[in-house]
Amino acid sequence: MSFIPNDHPRAESLRLREQILEGVASGIVAASGPIAHGRGEAFDYLLGERTLECVAQDIQVAAAMLLEAAKPVISVNGNVAALAPKEVVDLSKAIPAPIEINIFYGSKLDDRRKRIAEVLERHGAENVLGLEPDAIVPALSSNRAHVDSRGIATSDLVLVMLEDGDRCQALRRWNKQVLSIDLNPFSRSATSSTLNICDNLIRALPLLSEQILELKTSKHAVLNLIKSFDVNDSHTKLMQAIMLRLSTFARNNQS
Amino acid sequence: MSFIPNDHPRAESLRLREQILEGVASGIVAASGPIAHGRGEAFDYLLGERTLECVAQDIQVAAAMLLEAAKPVISVNGNVAALAPKEVVDLSKAIPAPIEINIFYGSKLDDRRKRIAEVLERHGAENVLGLEPDAIVPALSSNRAHVDSRGIATSDLVLVMLEDGDRCQALRRWNKQVLSIDLNPFSRSATSSTLNICDNLIRALPLLSEQILELKTSKHAVLNLIKSFDVNDSHTKLMQAIMLRLSTFARNNQS
Repeated sequence: MSFIPNDHPRAESLRLREQILEGVASGIVAASGPIAHGRGEAFDYLLGERTLECVAQDIQVAAAMLLEAAKPVISVNGNVAALAPKEVVDLSKAIPAPIEINIFYGSKLDDRRKRIAEVLERHGAENVLGLEPDAIVPALSSNRAHVDSRGIATSDLVLVMLEDGDRCQALRRWNKQVLSIDLNPFSRSATSSTLNICDNLIRALPLLSEQILELKTSKHAVLNLIKSFDVNDSHTKLMQAIMLRLSTFARNNQS
Repeated sequence: MSFIPNDHPRAESLRLREQILEGVASGIVAASGPIAHGRGEAFDYLLGERTLECVAQDIQVAAAMLLEAAKPVISVNGNVAALAPKEVVDLSKAIPAPIEINIFYGSKLDDRRKRIAEVLERHGAENVLGLEPDAIVPALSSNRAHVDSRGIATSDLVLVMLEDGDRCQALRRWNKQVLSIDLNPFSRSATSSTLNICDNLIRALPLLSEQILELKTSKHAVLNLIKSFDVNDSHTKLMQAIMLRLSTFARNNQS
């Protein structure tokens, strides 16, 4: 890894970029993974590379939903494993919920699954699912249809990150709740999931774990958060926050 | 190249994505080129993947500036060569202006320069500059400082695409006019260039060539366009157009 000084204004962003490129080199990230990462970078830039206040509220609700679900599962692909292996494992233990590998590129017995599992295990994951998927998401033609009968297939809530819209919609049709973490607020994942966290997963995952530990002792707070959540309200607040940021940008760029 | 049906709603975007990944495989595009491409995709998505009307006006002014410059040069990197080799060569002939290779990654004698030149030559380019750069952009520490004494070093106007902000600013300090094509309206390139075309180069380059052929016969129109251009006005119109699109999006996503 090349040396990035900690005081570089974009040090964190550059470090994540390197993790993705190293992930390609080590066979964890698919060839097109860096393109998806770049899209995320652009949307994160629009947010100011910070967790918006309205998004922090969505994260709280998401934590409540993860606690209230009967059988939540965390779905992980190559980019997620390259960017935030420790954060995913921490979340998995905080809930607790199993991690299942699910990839877009590569067959159901692709070696990339094994390499992703190894990365997660190095960060403390146990019993990673999805290495030998034995079930199918109905009405989904891509490789992402291959799921584990012990995991996503029998879950009631799936947390997906950096997802393709097709699978998110197929999981919803399969009567599962879907929590997504997607920086693009206009993507099909973000607009078809039960709740989207419009944030960089590197920031969202630790916040989610933190909220889960906080809410664990209060069933009452959990139920209240879920009851009060309004997806339209959440979208509207997010759009207002992004537009406020754009208009500030526009003013500051006046030379 | 994998088969992408022409009627796929995102066929053009997917095709460009493949061109970038093939560019990596053939050594034209740098390893981090796909990340930059992904950022562009995201901003293009915000624009609705079309040339905004206010941007079409900027393209007209840019055409006038290219015609009025004493010695314009088109600067090309790996991503540009992978995405739009024919469009670059067409523009070079329409103006006419030489093409100079300028890359961020790789030394001044990197083989990638040769491979980029070969791609351009296959599309009809003659006398491509920047293969053996012999001059230096003052006060710029990256490899992009290496320029050709017959090209950028002695030019009065440089057209840059998918650029890093450092070089754009260094060229401006070197008293050169800079036209940029950059989908990120907030980037340092976009905000420090003389005029930024906030558009996908695959759409902007043919429009630019078309405008040049149209304006060639009217010195009067060329001078009027340059005289009437106001960079603040151009920024404001662009921001308004993007915000209008976001608010439409926000409304349509109400479920």
